[in-house]
Amino acid sequence: MISNDSPAVRVALEYFHAWSGKDMDKAMTYVSDDIVCDAPAGRIEGAAAYRAFLEPFSQILTSASMLAAFGDERTALVMYDTSTVPVADAPGAELVTILDGRITQSRFLFDRAPFDAARASAD
Amino acid sequence: MISNDSPAVRVALEYFHAWSGKDMDKAMTYVSDDIVCDAPAGRIEGAAAYRAFLEPFSQILTSASMLAAFGDERTALVMYDTSTVPVADAPGAELVTILDGRITQSRFLFDRAPFDAARASAD
Repeated sequence: MISNDSPAVRVALEYFHAWSGKDMDKAMTYVSDDIVCDAPAGRIEGAAAYRAFLEPFSQILTSASMLAAFGDERTALVMYDTSTVPVADAPGAELVTILDGRITQSRFLFDRAPFDAARASAD
Repeated sequence: MISNDSPAVRVALEYFHAWSGKDMDKAMTYVSDDIVCDAPAGRIEGAAAYRAFLEPFSQILTSASMLAAFGDERTALVMYDTSTVPVADAPGAELVTILDGRITQSRFLFDRAPFDAARASAD
């Protein structure tokens, strides 16, 4: 992994290790109650909705590795690889704003196409 | 835009401003002849193939803005928003390795789903 050390990067990495280790309770300790996340399918508001978005993904995860994590005092930008049950190669990127140790804003980016294709072929 | 200043970030931003300004000849001056790019649809090898991948995208672009650019001596990680003719909201992220002022490796991430949907509805 390539990274720099900064307060926001540290939180982003702890959060990543929690959810990629399928410890969603711990992952949510890094997520603000009022998180606003812009994901491929649209805006997600609030911790409960965010958990409902991320938890199913963590459950189908077979591996995850951080590729790069950079940031400053308040902002972190990360890119990682994952493998999942339906999609072997599913990288993601997140741009997060951290306040008091928690993610308050997130831009969440991944390619939905292979997940859509896997779902279609399973129907 | 949120960023730190580093040699790789400087190149990544110049490259971004060139292609997002539709100056593909200038953009390609930041791309190594031997670039290896892992994009959503698979691996792209060599500058000619890379240009054939990026130029059609630059042509349908209506606006682009860099959200965040971080990096160090050799690596830059960026996330940006774009609007295109078929897809209004098409963010992208790139993790690039820079050698002698040119991108030699790239992990290129965007959501293909809305482009697939636009293509399907145009058929």
